[in-house]
Amino acid sequence: MSRWEPNARGRLEQAALELYRERGFDQTTVAEIAERAGLTERTFFRYYADKREVLFWGQEKLREIYVSTIAAAPDSTAPIDAVAAALEAATPVFRERHELARQRQAVIAANPGLQERELLKRAWLADAMAAALRDRGVPEPAASLAAESGVIAFKTAYARWVTEPGEPDLSQLIRESLDQLKVMAAGR
Amino acid sequence: MSRWEPNARGRLEQAALELYRERGFDQTTVAEIAERAGLTERTFFRYYADKREVLFWGQEKLREIYVSTIAAAPDSTAPIDAVAAALEAATPVFRERHELARQRQAVIAANPGLQERELLKRAWLADAMAAALRDRGVPEPAASLAAESGVIAFKTAYARWVTEPGEPDLSQLIRESLDQLKVMAAGR
Repeated sequence: MSRWEPNARGRLEQAALELYRERGFDQTTVAEIAERAGLTERTFFRYYADKREVLFWGQEKLREIYVSTIAAAPDSTAPIDAVAAALEAATPVFRERHELARQRQAVIAANPGLQERELLKRAWLADAMAAALRDRGVPEPAASLAAESGVIAFKTAYARWVTEPGEPDLSQLIRESLDQLKVMAAGR
Repeated sequence: MSRWEPNARGRLEQAALELYRERGFDQTTVAEIAERAGLTERTFFRYYADKREVLFWGQEKLREIYVSTIAAAPDSTAPIDAVAAALEAATPVFRERHELARQRQAVIAANPGLQERELLKRAWLADAMAAALRDRGVPEPAASLAAESGVIAFKTAYARWVTEPGEPDLSQLIRESLDQLKVMAAGR
């Protein structure tokens, strides 16, 4: 048994992101990540199933926040507003990880396989939100349209959040994206 | 050199769809498809790179129609209306293949790997439409929001078109989806 290592998960994540950016995702091994973090491979696999999961472990947490927030919205809430509340509820998860998010985005932008994985993650989150809306009695196709539109608005806001200088407010960017969506859909 | 075979492409496609539905996509070989169509494997590979391409060969044609329609829209056209015109312009491609489209949808619904491929196809088409909008001077994020919303609306309309009984009008279903999107985005 190896001894407890303080913040092993975070150290492994930081080491992995550094190496993915320096050498490329495909060229980096788990052994190198563990070495950079000053930990063992065995410790790596205690936290992550593989080197790709370092980039995608957060999706289950997001799903839980989205689904529970949609479920808890008042009955009178319009579907798109329930989705907006869900996206807003998850912003603290991102806010405390701004610098990591920027690094992660650069890694994904450099690798088509990771871009596909990111696309599947978004589709999976949209499906989960659509199901949560249907559980509230929102019929199809309204449920899917609201969920997928929400994911698009989030993607747009997130892209600005990781690329614009300084510390833009992710919640504000999400609201702007949803407003842009409304204006766009109205044909203006 | 094998002799010319009348409608070899279509015969191979029909044979492939039958086998994918009977045995599953993963369990079907190119040899079996060729045999069912009464053709050789060599003929198969003259039309399709592999057995998956039988299901996805149309995406390049769609891209061309979408991009050229967006490019040809009058200057004053709103982004979402240029996208709507593009989706509408491609409907004849689908209309003449309604029964094949139903079969194809059943095959894809039964196979997670094909669902991922379909998702990537949609993302690729959305990217192409967003680029065509930017070429018209539509700024980001409006270009991407319009393109991705159009793809969502089309997906919703298409799902109804292949599942509803009779011969629903795909153009009409697309218009309904875009109207639903507008209502949804407005928070009603």
